[in-house]
Amino acid sequence: MTETPQGKLHLLYLDDLAVGQTFVSAEASITEADILAFARAYDPQPFHLDPEAAKATLFGGLAASGWHTAGLTMRLNVEGGLPFAGGIVGLGGEVKWPRPTRAGDVLHVESRILEITPSRSKPDRGTVSVVCETRNQRGEVVQELKAKLMVLRRT
Amino acid sequence: MTETPQGKLHLLYLDDLAVGQTFVSAEASITEADILAFARAYDPQPFHLDPEAAKATLFGGLAASGWHTAGLTMRLNVEGGLPFAGGIVGLGGEVKWPRPTRAGDVLHVESRILEITPSRSKPDRGTVSVVCETRNQRGEVVQELKAKLMVLRRT
Repeated sequence: MTETPQGKLHLLYLDDLAVGQTFVSAEASITEADILAFARAYDPQPFHLDPEAAKATLFGGLAASGWHTAGLTMRLNVEGGLPFAGGIVGLGGEVKWPRPTRAGDVLHVESRILEITPSRSKPDRGTVSVVCETRNQRGEVVQELKAKLMVLRRT
Repeated sequence: MTETPQGKLHLLYLDDLAVGQTFVSAEASITEADILAFARAYDPQPFHLDPEAAKATLFGGLAASGWHTAGLTMRLNVEGGLPFAGGIVGLGGEVKWPRPTRAGDVLHVESRILEITPSRSKPDRGTVSVVCETRNQRGEVVQELKAKLMVLRRT
């Protein structure tokens, strides 16, 4: 069990997971100040930095950096969205941003297990493929991430 | 031309690019304080948050969140690594983290154009596939990103 913003969670091992199993995270909101601060540090482009200048860009207004959406998705998954023993250790993934995250959006993550592969060489672990859809308050997908995670076995 | 930390850069349009063309970014260093601050906001796990606790994890010591490495890669590309007119607009990508980024690392990005596809429906733009290898001061790859970017045409 672990303490998270959602309360106590049973932590899951590879052996507890099944293909098709789903998870839903808590919610996180994003403000204009959050978007600007992230952009200044990691993605300093007009459509992420300046609400006025952003209007004339293909985003048609201030949009969060896709990497900001990825960071918020990670936090939601770490804070109980994907309650895996050993934490969330990503080996890599495929990310898409079908529409931008905007100031005032409230995001959550819906995840589904796609594949479970016990390691042949390391009996204490395996890899799990999971698709994580990050949705806004209207249910629209702002990010799709297919991630390959290292998950511990119950030994 | 645009002002960047590397000086004035000629901005490139889709028509200026060729498959196989390479780009090298400037360098960015990462401190322990940077790693902890990013982790607190976006990836609060012991191996990113606590140098002592991290020793007992599979990282064997404090490691930056993969999403932090992704953010620094983006900043290096925005600040002249990929000098594209219209900026760096990612539609999505495939990311891998073959080894962790550590406190004290100095990163740079080496990018190569893989594919150039003018849009059939929108004559002012196209998509460019690019592979971006983020390397540390020993030349080791800490991130490989195959990204699909929207790039403007010279119209």
